[in-house]
Amino acid sequence: MSLEIVSSNKSFGGWHKRYKHRSSSLNCDMVFAVYLPPQAEQGARLPVLYWLSGLTCTDENFMQKAGAHRLAAELGLIIVAPDTSPRGEGVADDANGAYDFGLGAGFYLNATQQPWAKHYRMYDYVVDELPALIEANFPVSDRRGIAGHSMGGHGALVCALKNPGRYQSLSAFAPIANPMNCPWGEKAFSNYLGEDRSRWREWDASVLILDATQKLPILIDQGDRDDFLVNQLKPEALQAAASAASHPLQLRLQPGYDHSYYFIASFIDDHLRHHAQFLKG
Amino acid sequence: MSLEIVSSNKSFGGWHKRYKHRSSSLNCDMVFAVYLPPQAEQGARLPVLYWLSGLTCTDENFMQKAGAHRLAAELGLIIVAPDTSPRGEGVADDANGAYDFGLGAGFYLNATQQPWAKHYRMYDYVVDELPALIEANFPVSDRRGIAGHSMGGHGALVCALKNPGRYQSLSAFAPIANPMNCPWGEKAFSNYLGEDRSRWREWDASVLILDATQKLPILIDQGDRDDFLVNQLKPEALQAAASAASHPLQLRLQPGYDHSYYFIASFIDDHLRHHAQFLKG
Repeated sequence: MSLEIVSSNKSFGGWHKRYKHRSSSLNCDMVFAVYLPPQAEQGARLPVLYWLSGLTCTDENFMQKAGAHRLAAELGLIIVAPDTSPRGEGVADDANGAYDFGLGAGFYLNATQQPWAKHYRMYDYVVDELPALIEANFPVSDRRGIAGHSMGGHGALVCALKNPGRYQSLSAFAPIANPMNCPWGEKAFSNYLGEDRSRWREWDASVLILDATQKLPILIDQGDRDDFLVNQLKPEALQAAASAASHPLQLRLQPGYDHSYYFIASFIDDHLRHHAQFLKG
Repeated sequence: MSLEIVSSNKSFGGWHKRYKHRSSSLNCDMVFAVYLPPQAEQGARLPVLYWLSGLTCTDENFMQKAGAHRLAAELGLIIVAPDTSPRGEGVADDANGAYDFGLGAGFYLNATQQPWAKHYRMYDYVVDELPALIEANFPVSDRRGIAGHSMGGHGALVCALKNPGRYQSLSAFAPIANPMNCPWGEKAFSNYLGEDRSRWREWDASVLILDATQKLPILIDQGDRDDFLVNQLKPEALQAAASAASHPLQLRLQPGYDHSYYFIASFIDDHLRHHAQFLKG
């Protein structure tokens, strides 16, 4: 698995780099971004935070807009941001080019239905292929955290809850917390996974948390002026399930904040510190 | 002059807002962005930093990518970011739609040549019209700073050097420091101002600084891996002129940094503190 460098920018004493590679799980070329703090050039082996973005995003949104490099440089955290779906010619897309399904909307699962199953295996990519690539090519320790926003918050929760021991820290911004029961999730799951709703349960954080064997503490921030809060995000479902399962979850409702990267930037430092607390030392 | 709100996002306890208005100096509708720190809702009258962006930008680039809200919220600075040219149907553009002239490339001057003179009066807009609008509509003090990047660094230098006493602080990232003597500046000035190079001198910071009556200290950051450094930016010309005129200029060559917003984000805190030092107290 070889990496081709796409671009490189010095940032807060470290480097923001983008790489292209052939993905075997997705059957296409993919681009991901990595932030390497200054400590990466000093021989240290550093923990990695995987960031999963939301609908319509690529690897670029978080790196450009979240303002995360400043504190990552201070804390010595590597951040890896993959794309949000397979890409390229031959990758099936929503028939109407909708923003909430197909390209830019992989939902971090392994599709079982055609034509999606051929490429849409973002779960395998994020949990296995990409970490193997990172661990082979960058000075990383064996500590991994995962976080994300909206569809990516759903992805972070599901990846961690399905893989006890694989991640040492977990957080989310405005996650799609109960995708089986919201329009975005119902559209994605019925197409990627088929109409049998029992198969959807293994991709829904509010279900998975009921049987989680690793009680990884979860930090979630959610804006109370987020236009998607009531119909799509449903953090109260996850909170109820976490409470029933005695799973540690801190859900912070942030007054006045919306679904944008201004919201993420406002609280990213708290999340980086949350991850550093579990990933370092 | 009425303001129409375009969007509003809570950010670091304050608000990022975008407004549309009819500009009398530019003869078109314009959009600008303002960051209002939390102190703006607490009855304080706050200093304003005007940020001028570079080629191809709008009001959005700085607000989304510079990571400036965090410290502006702490320091109690209002930041105003105008667009980089007049906009809309009827506004002349480069015949080939080039990125470095016409739309997105107003160069913060008052054009004297047709068809440009009808709309391209960004100098009047930035120095007079926009501050009057801000001062009529927001809780601002009488302290003003100005800063910018690339073409906007040129703009900030020129606006401050031409108006002694109007700004109390000044800084720039990778400014076009001697536009008379670089390809970007020669293209813009010959079209906007005509072929008589003696008329160009009043829009070139490296000339204006020789006769500046207000010795406003200038902070400039410049990446030494900036692809435009040698052919377009020429900070050494400004440094030589400042030195000849005994004008206080701190030019910091930052090793490894390029021309991107990752560079700006890396040093924006230093610039905000530079401005706060002159604008507060």
